[in-house]
Amino acid sequence: MSEVAVVPETILDNGQGVIDFDVYFEMNEPPANLPEFEEKLNAFVEYHKATNNKVVFITSGGTTVPLENQTVRFIDNFSNGNRGATSAEYFLEAGYAVVFMHRQNSILPYHRHYTHSNLGFLDYFEAKEDGSVQVCPQYETKMYQTLVKYQEAKKSNRILMLDFITLPEYLFKLQSGTKILARLENRAMYYLAAAVSDFFIPSTKMAEHKIQSRDGGLTLTLDQVPKFLKPLVSHWASKGLIVSFKLETDTTLLVPKARQALTRYGHQVVIGNMLKTRKQTVTLITQHSQKVLALTKEQMDHDVEIESLIIPQLVQIHQNWIASGDTDE
Amino acid sequence: MSEVAVVPETILDNGQGVIDFDVYFEMNEPPANLPEFEEKLNAFVEYHKATNNKVVFITSGGTTVPLENQTVRFIDNFSNGNRGATSAEYFLEAGYAVVFMHRQNSILPYHRHYTHSNLGFLDYFEAKEDGSVQVCPQYETKMYQTLVKYQEAKKSNRILMLDFITLPEYLFKLQSGTKILARLENRAMYYLAAAVSDFFIPSTKMAEHKIQSRDGGLTLTLDQVPKFLKPLVSHWASKGLIVSFKLETDTTLLVPKARQALTRYGHQVVIGNMLKTRKQTVTLITQHSQKVLALTKEQMDHDVEIESLIIPQLVQIHQNWIASGDTDE
Repeated sequence: MSEVAVVPETILDNGQGVIDFDVYFEMNEPPANLPEFEEKLNAFVEYHKATNNKVVFITSGGTTVPLENQTVRFIDNFSNGNRGATSAEYFLEAGYAVVFMHRQNSILPYHRHYTHSNLGFLDYFEAKEDGSVQVCPQYETKMYQTLVKYQEAKKSNRILMLDFITLPEYLFKLQSGTKILARLENRAMYYLAAAVSDFFIPSTKMAEHKIQSRDGGLTLTLDQVPKFLKPLVSHWASKGLIVSFKLETDTTLLVPKARQALTRYGHQVVIGNMLKTRKQTVTLITQHSQKVLALTKEQMDHDVEIESLIIPQLVQIHQNWIASGDTDE
Repeated sequence: MSEVAVVPETILDNGQGVIDFDVYFEMNEPPANLPEFEEKLNAFVEYHKATNNKVVFITSGGTTVPLENQTVRFIDNFSNGNRGATSAEYFLEAGYAVVFMHRQNSILPYHRHYTHSNLGFLDYFEAKEDGSVQVCPQYETKMYQTLVKYQEAKKSNRILMLDFITLPEYLFKLQSGTKILARLENRAMYYLAAAVSDFFIPSTKMAEHKIQSRDGGLTLTLDQVPKFLKPLVSHWASKGLIVSFKLETDTTLLVPKARQALTRYGHQVVIGNMLKTRKQTVTLITQHSQKVLALTKEQMDHDVEIESLIIPQLVQIHQNWIASGDTDE
């Protein structure tokens, strides 16, 4: 993601297309299903508040930026949601309740083992002569184990699936969702793995593009999306543990840029990834420490997932955060 | 889709960002997996040529337009591939062999009944105490019937799944694929249901955008994609029956615009859709006729699919096309 200068919160538009979050929310319509989203989340949060459970709010997958009012075309970010879906399973194993706010049709926890692969849905089954459908023997043991874990999570009301498609839908739900989770104070963690667009087209500029599209080429002018970490950390969920992600291609920039984000926004953890090695190694950066987590050759050979190293570290950091009870740390 | 003036084929760039197809193919790299694509398709076509089967080449789903060389962002078209996947099943029922060239992770024939729904993969199953996985009773009868049809299509080598993601990948595979299918002459049908981008960013313009993205906003300048129906009808597959699609929002424009396309490109059938009613009614427009196909209220109540009306009509038109043996008709 590209870095930009911090903009004073009161500035509406600095002439370079940067606006404040309040202005963004005034300029855009909330999604029609926001009340339903809030109702489900309220019930989930109240349930876990009563039992004093720890809850993680995971965002996962990419956001779309519609280019037209009657949308046929949109800008999207490459992210299939693998990091978020995988992490959700390890948080559930660690005893957390999980709010999984994901891009529609992106990868889901547990289901992920059977979707977005080379096999289609029906390729896992065989039709028997008695008219029954059976799981092919080579898949059954693992599918049974996965199914049991998934059903246990559902039965104990420890997973809530919520979805989004567009950037405005994501931002409205992020704001509303983190404010609802904030009732859990420091027992909530925010694990912001979604790939959120840096740019959007204000509705006032949309008509313009349609005219220009008629004479051969097309010119699009996009404004910058306000950095949501700022209000999230300062206002929406200031007592929770906030984990953001950074993806880089230059190794030497990874830790300095992560530190810059921690200083700028004042949150607790950045998980730094290099584009090419993100499934084998990450760097966990906090205000006062940094730690490289890496899979061994043997772990990679046995398909151990990097998230199985990340989540226990975060659980420990969260435990310390709760114990300290110091929300300014 | 927006309509544009016809551009003489020799013009490289008319100053409005319109180029010829040959130039497009010279400017862009073919996909790395093109040889594998061609190998699979060659084998499939030879098999069905030997048995004199009719073959339909279906394109399905949307294309992406990368905005960066190290692509994180891209432009996409809304299309989940439902029309193409549904149609494939009815073509198979009508005895056709099907080449299903689809956007990766879009809706697939047969699998479609269990994906892109409110249920995740594992929601169709229950874990039994003996460690087995069983289909939930309410889903088993239909799943059995679907699985049998799917396995029959595979066993008889009548379905070939091929995929694409980006616009250049689609265009290279469309050209190569239709040229291979052309060996079947008039026994091949081309059913072009994919939602193909009208615009792309030439690689020469990409670096520019990255510079502009640093100072707040982002400006993108896109060129128009050459209309592929022109070379497809004239050169790549001139003896096949070619079916294109048109989606409109103004009813009065539907038939005139479809006729305009038939005149401009010289192919045989346009399937006209209105955005809001496309799942209940379509208009089938040929050089000399037009016919409205619509589901009755009763059919809609029984979940009859509009494709079950479209495909038999096309099979008949294709039969006449083969019988006439007159490829100039």
